[in-house]
Amino acid sequence: MTGERDQPDVADLDLGRIFAALAEPMRLKVIMELIRENVSGERSCASFCLPVAKSTLTHHFRVLREAGLISDTDYGNRRGVVLRREDLASRFPSLLQLLDDEAWSRHQLGARLDA
Amino acid sequence: MTGERDQPDVADLDLGRIFAALAEPMRLKVIMELIRENVSGERSCASFCLPVAKSTLTHHFRVLREAGLISDTDYGNRRGVVLRREDLASRFPSLLQLLDDEAWSRHQLGARLDA
Repeated sequence: MTGERDQPDVADLDLGRIFAALAEPMRLKVIMELIRENVSGERSCASFCLPVAKSTLTHHFRVLREAGLISDTDYGNRRGVVLRREDLASRFPSLLQLLDDEAWSRHQLGARLDA
Repeated sequence: MTGERDQPDVADLDLGRIFAALAEPMRLKVIMELIRENVSGERSCASFCLPVAKSTLTHHFRVLREAGLISDTDYGNRRGVVLRREDLASRFPSLLQLLDDEAWSRHQLGARLDA
């Protein structure tokens, strides 16, 4: 069965819960990657290439969904993830900017380390 | 002995660690209160009137200090807390805005509930 999983409404988004979700390095990396793509396209969970067991991956995406950061659709044989960009921008306008700045800063640092 | 406790340098501020510190409701409340005051003045830990044991209070302020959100000075008979406003603004320009927006939003909600 295909279906979008339960997620909080915009009015119920809680900043403390969002901070808790983003306190974990892999979850923060997923969200920064989605932000940097700057499109509303869907990604598969597997495409993030996180070095963890499937059960841990499932846990991380559940935390992100329950915090309201992503929508998560189950297609049976795979799961699709979309950043809730408009919802987040409407409720916490500076959050996406903060995460985009951080993603850019880490990208720049990575480029310097690779040089 | 009076002394400012160890805290991370600006270059070592880590967003994940800041998110972890702010994921706890009382710690988030302390930081929003300091931001809303919009001054660089020092507050005593006790002045936040948090309904917790002294050991828990000490823990919360240590987490905030170690994340780089506050400076924490030990005066022997009391401890003084200052928001690291300039350091945070220089490293994460959108973070203070995000927290200020949230503090204002909660203030407005409180005002509506009291009306």
